[in-house]
Amino acid sequence: MKVGIMGATGFTGAELVRILLQHPEVELAFVDSRTYENQQFDEVYPNLKGKATMKAQSVDPENLPEDMELVFCALPHRISQNKVIPMHDKGMKIIDLSADFRLNDQKTYEQWYQTAHQRPELLTKSVYGLPEWYKDALKEATLTANPGCFPTSILLPLLPLMKEGLVDGKHLVVSSNTGISGAGRKPSPVNLFSQVNENVRAYGIGTHRHTPEIEQELSLAAGSDITVQFTPHLVPMDRGILSTIVTPAVAGLTLKKVEDCYQAYYGNKPFIRLLSNDALPETKAVKGSNFCDIAWRVDERSGNLILVAAIDNLIKGSSGEAVQNMNLMLGMPEETGLDHLSIWP
Amino acid sequence: MKVGIMGATGFTGAELVRILLQHPEVELAFVDSRTYENQQFDEVYPNLKGKATMKAQSVDPENLPEDMELVFCALPHRISQNKVIPMHDKGMKIIDLSADFRLNDQKTYEQWYQTAHQRPELLTKSVYGLPEWYKDALKEATLTANPGCFPTSILLPLLPLMKEGLVDGKHLVVSSNTGISGAGRKPSPVNLFSQVNENVRAYGIGTHRHTPEIEQELSLAAGSDITVQFTPHLVPMDRGILSTIVTPAVAGLTLKKVEDCYQAYYGNKPFIRLLSNDALPETKAVKGSNFCDIAWRVDERSGNLILVAAIDNLIKGSSGEAVQNMNLMLGMPEETGLDHLSIWP
Amino acid sequence: MKVGIMGATGFTGAELVRILLQHPEVELAFVDSRTYENQQFDEVYPNLKGKATMKAQSVDPENLPEDMELVFCALPHRISQNKVIPMHDKGMKIIDLSADFRLNDQKTYEQWYQTAHQRPELLTKSVYGLPEWYKDALKEATLTANPGCFPTSILLPLLPLMKEGLVDGKHLVVSSNTGISGAGRKPSPVNLFSQVNENVRAYGIGTHRHTPEIEQELSLAAGSDITVQFTPHLVPMDRGILSTIVTPAVAGLTLKKVEDCYQAYYGNKPFIRLLSNDALPETKAVKGSNFCDIAWRVDERSGNLILVAAIDNLIKGSSGEAVQNMNLMLGMPEETGLDHLSIWP
Amino acid sequence: MKVGIMGATGFTGAELVRILLQHPEVELAFVDSRTYENQQFDEVYPNLKGKATMKAQSVDPENLPEDMELVFCALPHRISQNKVIPMHDKGMKIIDLSADFRLNDQKTYEQWYQTAHQRPELLTKSVYGLPEWYKDALKEATLTANPGCFPTSILLPLLPLMKEGLVDGKHLVVSSNTGISGAGRKPSPVNLFSQVNENVRAYGIGTHRHTPEIEQELSLAAGSDITVQFTPHLVPMDRGILSTIVTPAVAGLTLKKVEDCYQAYYGNKPFIRLLSNDALPETKAVKGSNFCDIAWRVDERSGNLILVAAIDNLIKGSSGEAVQNMNLMLGMPEETGLDHLSIWP
Repeated sequence: MKVGIMGATGFTGAELVRILLQHPEVELAFVDSRTYENQQFDEVYPNLKGKATMKAQSVDPENLPEDMELVFCALPHRISQNKVIPMHDKGMKIIDLSADFRLNDQKTYEQWYQTAHQRPELLTKSVYGLPEWYKDALKEATLTANPGCFPTSILLPLLPLMKEGLVDGKHLVVSSNTGISGAGRKPSPVNLFSQVNENVRAYGIGTHRHTPEIEQELSLAAGSDITVQFTPHLVPMDRGILSTIVTPAVAGLTLKKVEDCYQAYYGNKPFIRLLSNDALPETKAVKGSNFCDIAWRVDERSGNLILVAAIDNLIKGSSGEAVQNMNLMLGMPEETGLDHLSIWP
Repeated sequence: MKVGIMGATGFTGAELVRILLQHPEVELAFVDSRTYENQQFDEVYPNLKGKATMKAQSVDPENLPEDMELVFCALPHRISQNKVIPMHDKGMKIIDLSADFRLNDQKTYEQWYQTAHQRPELLTKSVYGLPEWYKDALKEATLTANPGCFPTSILLPLLPLMKEGLVDGKHLVVSSNTGISGAGRKPSPVNLFSQVNENVRAYGIGTHRHTPEIEQELSLAAGSDITVQFTPHLVPMDRGILSTIVTPAVAGLTLKKVEDCYQAYYGNKPFIRLLSNDALPETKAVKGSNFCDIAWRVDERSGNLILVAAIDNLIKGSSGEAVQNMNLMLGMPEETGLDHLSIWP
Repeated sequence: MKVGIMGATGFTGAELVRILLQHPEVELAFVDSRTYENQQFDEVYPNLKGKATMKAQSVDPENLPEDMELVFCALPHRISQNKVIPMHDKGMKIIDLSADFRLNDQKTYEQWYQTAHQRPELLTKSVYGLPEWYKDALKEATLTANPGCFPTSILLPLLPLMKEGLVDGKHLVVSSNTGISGAGRKPSPVNLFSQVNENVRAYGIGTHRHTPEIEQELSLAAGSDITVQFTPHLVPMDRGILSTIVTPAVAGLTLKKVEDCYQAYYGNKPFIRLLSNDALPETKAVKGSNFCDIAWRVDERSGNLILVAAIDNLIKGSSGEAVQNMNLMLGMPEETGLDHLSIWP
Repeated sequence: MKVGIMGATGFTGAELVRILLQHPEVELAFVDSRTYENQQFDEVYPNLKGKATMKAQSVDPENLPEDMELVFCALPHRISQNKVIPMHDKGMKIIDLSADFRLNDQKTYEQWYQTAHQRPELLTKSVYGLPEWYKDALKEATLTANPGCFPTSILLPLLPLMKEGLVDGKHLVVSSNTGISGAGRKPSPVNLFSQVNENVRAYGIGTHRHTPEIEQELSLAAGSDITVQFTPHLVPMDRGILSTIVTPAVAGLTLKKVEDCYQAYYGNKPFIRLLSNDALPETKAVKGSNFCDIAWRVDERSGNLILVAAIDNLIKGSSGEAVQNMNLMLGMPEETGLDHLSIWP
């Protein structure tokens, strides 16, 4: 099965290339890039030297190479929809890694992203690509909106509890820590080594664009409007997101009820690891893998429930999740080609 | 004026040595250490080579060198009280950097620290060494309990608002990020480079021992019992604490009210920097200095107040704060010898 | 085919576990550890959670589990020979990752390692496990001495040139930079985060124990005694070795001659990547993989040849190389199970 | 005494600001910047918040503010000479931190920097600002060319030995490791966190522009032409340079002769620390300070002399050294305002 990547030379695009090169069932037929057109891919990503020897090419979305089964679009929001719409119109299956098709509501999209949506009717047709939650829909999807990295780390621990009424959504406080790769590969004052190293800071307080998709999915699970206070922090590392969620425990909540709920939803999911012993998630344990590690605590003293989840932002939070979605959309077992284990240390 | 340090070779002890060597008004008369007895101090801390050439000695607390004005005690909790009590009994002014005299309530101490207190009556006599809050009491103090690093970063932004009713203390959620130096210098699986590097994790959820002193001081300011949900995280850096505090905004709260409150309390404080522009604190901007940088946001959408504060855990969160306390206790301007600026990067 | 690991819970042992769990042809039948006896392996290494669920056991080398084809020994030198000798005596194929069987000369071993060798006759029988150099011998080997991490990074670029007389071995100066994982997992003042982070230092100048094996192999290739000045440096990262080798260029040496020599020796080797364009090796490009990246420069101005090589010290410099050796010893293609690509970043 | 800084918002300019703000004898009268004209300096450098409250201004070198005693020029080479020449022509004392006046020979400058020199006669008039070596000349200097960071770390250990014939300059091999701040503050693919973190690489092999100034000064000390093979490496840290120098030991060389030579030259120098015990330099021990730590080894086995030196590239390798030069040029003790000690960790 042939697949291609639009916008292949950003960090998420390059992760798709790396994963797909090792995927047993698909062939990576093209890697699109304007910036690096005609350059051999492994000259841009030296880790792939000798393996990603294809040349980047500028691909016309109206005129894709033949026999493609599916195309990934790893372009920034706003730009992405301009490529996705014509490809989808021609019947191509698409996984879009941008935010352009994640929100169901046009107004919410236009408000948070400050840009007009070119094809609002696709907002409700697209499937939100959280494979642990929308597996059946993904098998039928033609346009998948791959979730944001923070939302993946926040929704996976929250959704089952929200759905089952074990979290009521009042006073939902989320603090996330992320490595800098989420800020992308384009040099800026924000992602300089000298800025990031030996430094921690909060950013985007109350304004981070991942907020509406978190609230959308939580509200769908709860059956009512949920608001979340989401504060991301930047920490000095390449990869990884750790999200800590604090909310008042609902009456009668116990550790066992939480664990039972997780077991019911995630007991057979290949990429969710429930830390039911004393351990707490750490990003290093999932770095380079498609796992999401989850732990939970009920603090009797304060009356709060605390959830902690860890993912690799570029894999489970982006390109690995996208390949998991592709597997479902193309009729393969969802774990195909995603069995990489983290190295330690 | 002569001062000495009991337990000088841990990280906080060595920071005291470094700061006191550059202090214009005091002379560092002894550095106590059992482990490194008779060893030249700069062989243990190569940054101080040629400057800290005194030998570490094992000092008997019952029999201090003559003419001491004040002694710092930088030993672990439980051990510290055994040294502090006899020195204080003989009339020596003490600044204790351990937790042994921070809590006013014996039962709370014994419950959280799992050890008996040797001299409970000192718990109410000691002054909690937050110089921005207890300046007058510190001028008269004979025994100062230097605050924990996390509490310093959490109390400084919260206390004025709590005192003025701009925070009501319901649903107080604190997430802190710390560098590893807070875990000390003794090698353990926790503070290995290979464990800490490229990794983030939460720890001590609901059980961290800094919780009761945070709650004690907040409750005193509020005039009622306050509970806090405090979650520390370890991030891959040497130094720095960033604390993010989220709580529902009280009715009618505005950015201006918060700023006015801070200006009233901190406008003339030498080590508090209020980020009243768009900036947010970052630990790198305070590393190596005695500053605490504070910012605040009111999220109209969610109805929450968010406070962010950054300190250097070993300076404003420990040894710098201790020297600030010493300055007050010995009748000097509080900023004496503490004018170090952070380097960047 | 069943294999086992003696000393499986150190960093190199755990890398063997990780690689072998993903190896298509072998079954990991036991993981030996005294420290963690009866503990589930993935409790020690959280990256392997849910995958390495076997319990560590204390295995008697005189009484191995049945049907083993080969045993890896990942114990420290001196201790290793005590386990290797009885296993090898009983006819088991062994790959020893320690230094105990690397040196052909008993006196040299005893001088550098300050310990007696228990079975000197095995020193000449064992094969030095550099698969690019001793492939044929490894196919017949019963005892393979896996090279040190630094030697791998130094010998791979030097051996072909030395063999062909393109390096004469006079004034051979090697400077290597390594991540801290080479110092192992046991907490010590040397491998603390606070010691390693934001720091670079040289160590073991003129005394590093990898020196004699480097000189042994270079001397064998040269046909005469070669001395090397080897200076390792510790840099703040988990993994990776970069070695820079400087030596006067022999008369008539050109870039092309060097490249032709490398192509002749390494053109078809699966894990050697020759950077014949302008690129220079970087450790990040090989981290997590079994590759060795090599570049070369002839400095016309100074008359020197400069070689640079990068490896992952725990993979190509240790456990990956060991599995490559196992593949040869058990009759498989050498690249089997070693196709992991580095992630970036 | 009033001084100013042209080009104050790069890393070296900002270090000058930080050091001069704490200098007891000079007043920082202007900070020049085009990019940040009219912006408050502490908005660019948050570490200086509340301290560097002056506005950056675009200063005309033909028309400097009145009463200046000395101006620092912290601009890139090529641009710097255009500012330095008119200021110097008007009689202003200048310390230039660029390379524009370091080389005595016009042809060498133009060859390595690929640009014409605007005023070659100043090349011989300017003083090379290595205060441990040219102290007397610096007291009389009107134009000081502040050395490069690598040259400072290489010349300080080599010059005394070269002068005294304890190094003969044949086969001089230097390997240096540097933090990324030397690459400046301008975002580029080279200084991204994701590029630098967990990575080591060599660069500029045989072509680094610091080579000719190293060779110039060594040749002057030796009285004959010296060639050096200099290989810089980039390591994942903000600051610090560690240089390791290997050269064949001259006949009869002993550790004692090296130490005696160093004591004779550096015994009373305030910023040179000779590690005559077993210790080796580490960059962390000098970070944030103006010290240069030096150690030496004679390897009897190989017949080589090995020197190791550590500095903070932005202080002793740049702005601290510049202030030390200013002190001499303005008739103050050289250590004035430079007594900062490194923090640890």
